[in-house]
Amino acid sequence: MHSELLRGNPLGDPHERPIHVYLPPGYNSDTGRRYPVVYTIQGYTGHVGMWFNRMPFRRPFPELADELFATTATPPAIVVYVDAWTAFGGSQFLDSPGTGRYHSYLCEEVVPWVDARYRTLADRDHRAVAGKSSGGYGAMVTPMLRPDLFGALATHAGDALFEVCYQADFRDVARTLRDEYAGSYEAFLADWRGRLHGTKDSDLDLIETYGYAAAYSANPDGSVSLPFDELGAPVPEVWSRWLAWDPVRMAAEPRYAEALRSQRAIWIDAGTRDEYHLDFGAEAFRRAVSAAGVPDTTVHFELFPAKHGGIEYRYPLSLAWLCERMA
Amino acid sequence: MHSELLRGNPLGDPHERPIHVYLPPGYNSDTGRRYPVVYTIQGYTGHVGMWFNRMPFRRPFPELADELFATTATPPAIVVYVDAWTAFGGSQFLDSPGTGRYHSYLCEEVVPWVDARYRTLADRDHRAVAGKSSGGYGAMVTPMLRPDLFGALATHAGDALFEVCYQADFRDVARTLRDEYAGSYEAFLADWRGRLHGTKDSDLDLIETYGYAAAYSANPDGSVSLPFDELGAPVPEVWSRWLAWDPVRMAAEPRYAEALRSQRAIWIDAGTRDEYHLDFGAEAFRRAVSAAGVPDTTVHFELFPAKHGGIEYRYPLSLAWLCERMA
Amino acid sequence: MHSELLRGNPLGDPHERPIHVYLPPGYNSDTGRRYPVVYTIQGYTGHVGMWFNRMPFRRPFPELADELFATTATPPAIVVYVDAWTAFGGSQFLDSPGTGRYHSYLCEEVVPWVDARYRTLADRDHRAVAGKSSGGYGAMVTPMLRPDLFGALATHAGDALFEVCYQADFRDVARTLRDEYAGSYEAFLADWRGRLHGTKDSDLDLIETYGYAAAYSANPDGSVSLPFDELGAPVPEVWSRWLAWDPVRMAAEPRYAEALRSQRAIWIDAGTRDEYHLDFGAEAFRRAVSAAGVPDTTVHFELFPAKHGGIEYRYPLSLAWLCERMA
Amino acid sequence: MHSELLRGNPLGDPHERPIHVYLPPGYNSDTGRRYPVVYTIQGYTGHVGMWFNRMPFRRPFPELADELFATTATPPAIVVYVDAWTAFGGSQFLDSPGTGRYHSYLCEEVVPWVDARYRTLADRDHRAVAGKSSGGYGAMVTPMLRPDLFGALATHAGDALFEVCYQADFRDVARTLRDEYAGSYEAFLADWRGRLHGTKDSDLDLIETYGYAAAYSANPDGSVSLPFDELGAPVPEVWSRWLAWDPVRMAAEPRYAEALRSQRAIWIDAGTRDEYHLDFGAEAFRRAVSAAGVPDTTVHFELFPAKHGGIEYRYPLSLAWLCERMA
Repeated sequence: MHSELLRGNPLGDPHERPIHVYLPPGYNSDTGRRYPVVYTIQGYTGHVGMWFNRMPFRRPFPELADELFATTATPPAIVVYVDAWTAFGGSQFLDSPGTGRYHSYLCEEVVPWVDARYRTLADRDHRAVAGKSSGGYGAMVTPMLRPDLFGALATHAGDALFEVCYQADFRDVARTLRDEYAGSYEAFLADWRGRLHGTKDSDLDLIETYGYAAAYSANPDGSVSLPFDELGAPVPEVWSRWLAWDPVRMAAEPRYAEALRSQRAIWIDAGTRDEYHLDFGAEAFRRAVSAAGVPDTTVHFELFPAKHGGIEYRYPLSLAWLCERMA
Repeated sequence: MHSELLRGNPLGDPHERPIHVYLPPGYNSDTGRRYPVVYTIQGYTGHVGMWFNRMPFRRPFPELADELFATTATPPAIVVYVDAWTAFGGSQFLDSPGTGRYHSYLCEEVVPWVDARYRTLADRDHRAVAGKSSGGYGAMVTPMLRPDLFGALATHAGDALFEVCYQADFRDVARTLRDEYAGSYEAFLADWRGRLHGTKDSDLDLIETYGYAAAYSANPDGSVSLPFDELGAPVPEVWSRWLAWDPVRMAAEPRYAEALRSQRAIWIDAGTRDEYHLDFGAEAFRRAVSAAGVPDTTVHFELFPAKHGGIEYRYPLSLAWLCERMA
Repeated sequence: MHSELLRGNPLGDPHERPIHVYLPPGYNSDTGRRYPVVYTIQGYTGHVGMWFNRMPFRRPFPELADELFATTATPPAIVVYVDAWTAFGGSQFLDSPGTGRYHSYLCEEVVPWVDARYRTLADRDHRAVAGKSSGGYGAMVTPMLRPDLFGALATHAGDALFEVCYQADFRDVARTLRDEYAGSYEAFLADWRGRLHGTKDSDLDLIETYGYAAAYSANPDGSVSLPFDELGAPVPEVWSRWLAWDPVRMAAEPRYAEALRSQRAIWIDAGTRDEYHLDFGAEAFRRAVSAAGVPDTTVHFELFPAKHGGIEYRYPLSLAWLCERMA
Repeated sequence: MHSELLRGNPLGDPHERPIHVYLPPGYNSDTGRRYPVVYTIQGYTGHVGMWFNRMPFRRPFPELADELFATTATPPAIVVYVDAWTAFGGSQFLDSPGTGRYHSYLCEEVVPWVDARYRTLADRDHRAVAGKSSGGYGAMVTPMLRPDLFGALATHAGDALFEVCYQADFRDVARTLRDEYAGSYEAFLADWRGRLHGTKDSDLDLIETYGYAAAYSANPDGSVSLPFDELGAPVPEVWSRWLAWDPVRMAAEPRYAEALRSQRAIWIDAGTRDEYHLDFGAEAFRRAVSAAGVPDTTVHFELFPAKHGGIEYRYPLSLAWLCERMA
């Protein structure tokens, strides 16, 4: 699809974007029927093409989703796989002068594009967003920002409780910068762009942290402010900008609390051995959701024994649950 | 493609197999030209569908290969992506009563199938085999077993020097079996088959080691003998069967030494931080190749700073080199 | 020695304390001479008896100190090894209702006790305090609190920059508490007291963090407030009490800045691979010292390639430097 | 004590050796009584002075032993702490042209020295040897070599099943040598001798492996043959010399089997998470002991949940058991 909002984005990423729309069994035969839509978004470094990656002894989510609808009584839905890749590996599904207008692109372009082309139930009560990791983050914040558009969400190990999931890693990033790049992110970026990603062990951590900063604390001119100094300590005026985007803190604001109360279904889960401690993020968001006044009956919360990776088998569980709730 | 040799294999794996044949630029216009063929095989847990997996900031090998031929003066070749997946995750490209006749399938079915359908230079001087990890293993042993069919090879971090790359891990497998499965591989397999792969951290190591045993030390009735006992110590009569399949030891046998001397090109490389110590395997095989009488001019040997993963960027290097040598 | 200030301490630790006083070569013959004193304090879990522990291929510090004075022209000094062990493993050399009055004990009892019994130069210009890790912490804060008593200090990998050295570990402590003790420190303490220390891998981290809280954020009734909640997130009203004890922040306060300016010698070092990131703490304290107005000539700052452990060979370097400066 | 056998040892280590003899409560009052003796030997890098090292929240073994005799009905014994330190950190309590005659020193000098000075029950039925790690190794082999001298033993996590406990680590040593010392042990030794031990992370592994080789496979001229080549693969003619010293294999030889059958008490234990997999060594030795014909009633065998370190709390258990058996 073609995005006007992403045209001229600061990273020079394409404004033509792939999109993958899954239509459930029966869609073509039962031509009068309209369907709810689950927008599925990815974790950091994910782009839409990766949904079809094959793993040993596992099946990719699109196959599991199809199997779900084909073999169970789950109420059918359209599943849309959205691309929000950037040159830094992701966008956190936010509008930022550092990366581009990915939040608006999702809400104002992708959603209408789908509604215009497919027989959707084109209202917020039949529109959900779901994702894992950074995709779980997007699934938490998008409905808070646009409750008029989204009425249900599922977050699997979504980024939350930023002091716990992010801050603790800054010291390692700072040390790597000191030891390998004379303390300079510019030096890292110049080096990284000039060679193959991953040929240094630290590449992923460095680009990921930079990408988060580009999403949370970029400046109007597109420059990126880091939330920590060269000793790994928080820079309060930047770190506070990150914290303002923490779903846990957002949920305490009246407008976002109201948005959460309007949700029909909120799925929250994470693995108890998640390397980023997103089980704590999940628990904190779950508490924040309750504190916002969301009744327990609206929420599915679950911690399960797993790390951060290899949990795509959880997606069909939340998909089925969301479909039941939106039916 | 359809395989008679894999029909009725002991693991009940399909005998209809995917195959992916890449035709170089110009193949369709220059209809009188014939091409060398590089058979590309995968590491353990790889199946042919994974070649197209997308990784962040990287491109899959088939794209890199295409770029190679499209943008450089590399002599063109047909690249064939062969599937040898099994229910244990791999076959080591050998014939075994534990898994099936994957060596014969490759040599007697895949090669003729390709030669029959494409304008190949259908002789051993224009036929190479290349792969990484277990695929590198297959690339080493297949031309030794069938020098009439293959005249060039490339091994990236291929399994070799079994005392170093395999034996050292047996104690950990034995401990896991003791602690999690009361010492019984049967208990592991029963548990593993009944749930999702990877939900226990030890799954990969256990199934991989079992798969190797199924390839190297299965018995005529299909049962699998383990090369180590419940204390992780080698069982000499089984371990010696494994060692007989070590490319380093094979190369010392006259018939295989002769096969190696007949090769036109031998590429050997590995990363110096390879977790399986396959840099030592590479060095040992390189020495064995020299000891077999292969002149240095026939060999490309290289250790480079990397671990075992993320080295698909090496494949185009060996592909170009093989194509130059076979041109 | 006998301490009135430690009598009746809240942990029931002894108020009779060992002390080890080293007298330099010549002390007994040159009976008219008076000497500077370096008070040496230990890291967490250290008690004075451990100074004499023997390590393979290494010599304990008391031997190195003696060799220093015996074989070089270093101006001689008395070295006093102070005990501040508690039932939690340490005191941070502070007065706290959670552990006892270890700061006052050091300043008001140990120092006079030594001055009364040995031929010291009994003034702040000839009195230094030195230590590593938590001992380095004590060496930073004691002269800030009592510049009338101490005029020089040496900190090796001392606890500083608490957001970096402490906060990042709270999430792991919280997870361990959740997974092993139902989230309850009381449950841990009850379990830990009833069995041998170290029989669970998590013992050291748990008791150490609790001990820090007992030093930094105990309440008047002796109860201990934790600086993080059950999700590992900071509890602002308690965490701020910790931060008030961070040497880096203390140094920015006028009274402590003045105390630092009055120091004759400040040695700061740490290893660049320190597991607690105390190299960043060292750098931050060094900057804070400069910002306080201390001239560069007063400061020795050094980062060296090492981890946190095994750096006792650094102590003689600072000892010699302090002695030169106090001579 | 003074050792003639260690005089002129190849490493230039002292032939004057410390020895620590513990006399049980009542020894001085009940002057007619004679006592069994337990010779206690140390793990690699241990020397007799380390027995008195203090650890946080723990007590050293000599105190635990004293408490045992002072507070329980355990039959009293003399406990002798033997020093067998070398410049490489240990001797494996063997005679070797690479290190010295430490086996003979223990059997022919230490034992008579003790018997001459203390009221011992000076016969093999009342003489035991006990130790941990390399000390456990010595405790296994010494009574096999000299059943005329020793009639009981205790091994805690003793080196055994060499393919499992040693061989698996050779590849890492070989890699370190390649990467840091151009493949040369001479280069390592020259570097190591010229600086402080432990300033490189690899120091301990390198010196320990070299020390084992000096014990197991030194040559008559004192030179040391390594059991692995520069690729980490076993060198059969040297490795077989090591294997000949494996307690598990020794126990299968008739003369040593007979020696084992003559033992009055054999204690074998290890931690199930031992980093060197000495739980497997313990189990293998236990099986070998049974296979040698030792009745189960003579053996105490136990695996307990622990790693290799911090298990000194096990020593009093075996001490009490040995004393009961020798009473």
